[in-house]
Amino acid sequence: MEDSVLLAAVTVLGVLEQAYFSLQVIYARRKYSVSPPATVGPPEFERVFRAQANCSEYFPIFITVLWTSGLFFSQGLSAVCGLLYLYGRFQYFNGYSQSALGRLAPLYFSAKVLWVLIGFSCVGVLLSLAKVYLNVDLVDQLYSALYLI
Amino acid sequence: MEDSVLLAAVTVLGVLEQAYFSLQVIYARRKYSVSPPATVGPPEFERVFRAQANCSEYFPIFITVLWTSGLFFSQGLSAVCGLLYLYGRFQYFNGYSQSALGRLAPLYFSAKVLWVLIGFSCVGVLLSLAKVYLNVDLVDQLYSALYLI
Amino acid sequence: MEDSVLLAAVTVLGVLEQAYFSLQVIYARRKYSVSPPATVGPPEFERVFRAQANCSEYFPIFITVLWTSGLFFSQGLSAVCGLLYLYGRFQYFNGYSQSALGRLAPLYFSAKVLWVLIGFSCVGVLLSLAKVYLNVDLVDQLYSALYLI
Repeated sequence: MEDSVLLAAVTVLGVLEQAYFSLQVIYARRKYSVSPPATVGPPEFERVFRAQANCSEYFPIFITVLWTSGLFFSQGLSAVCGLLYLYGRFQYFNGYSQSALGRLAPLYFSAKVLWVLIGFSCVGVLLSLAKVYLNVDLVDQLYSALYLI
Repeated sequence: MEDSVLLAAVTVLGVLEQAYFSLQVIYARRKYSVSPPATVGPPEFERVFRAQANCSEYFPIFITVLWTSGLFFSQGLSAVCGLLYLYGRFQYFNGYSQSALGRLAPLYFSAKVLWVLIGFSCVGVLLSLAKVYLNVDLVDQLYSALYLI
Repeated sequence: MEDSVLLAAVTVLGVLEQAYFSLQVIYARRKYSVSPPATVGPPEFERVFRAQANCSEYFPIFITVLWTSGLFFSQGLSAVCGLLYLYGRFQYFNGYSQSALGRLAPLYFSAKVLWVLIGFSCVGVLLSLAKVYLNVDLVDQLYSALYLI
C-alpha cells in the first residue's frame, strides 16, 4: 500500500481529467450540432474531438509507465512526473480547443515528461533484471564505488 | 492472490467482451463492404464502428478504476460494479448497433457505474493516504465513534 | 519483484514500440501534408494512421492480459507470448504501411498470440478462484493423479 498509494492518487486524478475531457466533447457535440456516430464537423468541434481522442490514446501508455516507473524505480519521482504530465495534458486540451497551433507547446512538454517516465521505467527494470537474474545489485555497487572515491 | 482474483476474473470477462465487439466490427465491415483503412460508410456500419471505438476508449479507464477501487477500497463491491459495467456496455453496444438513440439509456447506466467506481477509488486512496502519511486510520476512528454512540 | 520483472520488461518494450508507431504517424503527416485535426488524406497516410490507431486500441488489452496471464498463470510463458505479440504488431504496422493486404498475415498472427494469452489468463484465474473460494488446488490434484498413473 505504502509503495503505491501516491501512484494510485495520480491515477485517480488522471481518470478525473479524462472524464472532464469526455464531458467537453459532449458539450462540443451539442454546441456544434454534431450527433453521434458522426465525428466530422466544423474545425472547432474536430479540434476538441481530436484533443480528447489523443489524450485517451495516451492514457493507457501513461498509466503503464507511471506504475512501472513507480514500482521499479521511484514512487515519489514518478508521482511528480505524473502530476506534470496531467498538467501538460490539461494545457494541451485547452490549447488545442482554441487552435491547432495551441496544442504544440504543451504536447511537446507532456511528451518530454512521458519520455522521462519511460527512462525511469527502463532503468528500474534493468536494475531489477540484474538483481533477479544476475544476482548483481548495481545500486549497491554504485554506492560502494562512490564511498571508495 | 486472494485480494485480487475477483478483479482478475472481471478483467478477463472484460477482455472477452472487447474481443466480441471487435469481431462484430469485422462482420460489419464485410456486410457493408467497408474495407480498411476506410472507417466511413453507411450509418449502420458507422454505428457499430463507433460503438466499438467508444467501448475501447473506456476500457483502460474501466480497468484502471476497477483495480484502484478493488485494491484500495473493496474487492467485492468493485467486482460487482465491474460486472454491472460490462453488462451496461453489452446493452450499449447492441442498442447503438440498432439506432443512435438506442445507445443512450445503457450509456448513462454504464457511466453511472463508472462514477461509483471512481468514487470508491477516491475514498480508498484518501483513506490510504491518511493512513500512510498522517498515520491516521479513519475507518478505525469511524468505528470507534459509532461504538461511542 | 521476481514475479513480475519479465512482465515489466515486455511492458517497457511495448511502450517503446507504441512510441515508434506514433513517430511514424507524425512523419506521415508531414510527408503527405495532413495537418491535425484532419485524419483523412491519401491512402498511404490513412493506412499508417489506421495501423497506429489499431495498435493503440489493442495496447491496453495486450497489457491487461499480459499481466493477468503472467501473475495468475506463468510469468515466463506470458513474457514469451508478449515478445511474439510485439513482433507481430511490428510486422503488422510495416505491412499495413505498404498495403491494406500486407496487414492481414501479421494481424492474424498477433490475434492468435493474444488468444493464447487470454486462454492462459482464463486458466490462471479459474485455478486461483478454485483455490481461494473452493479451497481446491487443481494443479496439485492433477500432479497427484499423474503420479497414480
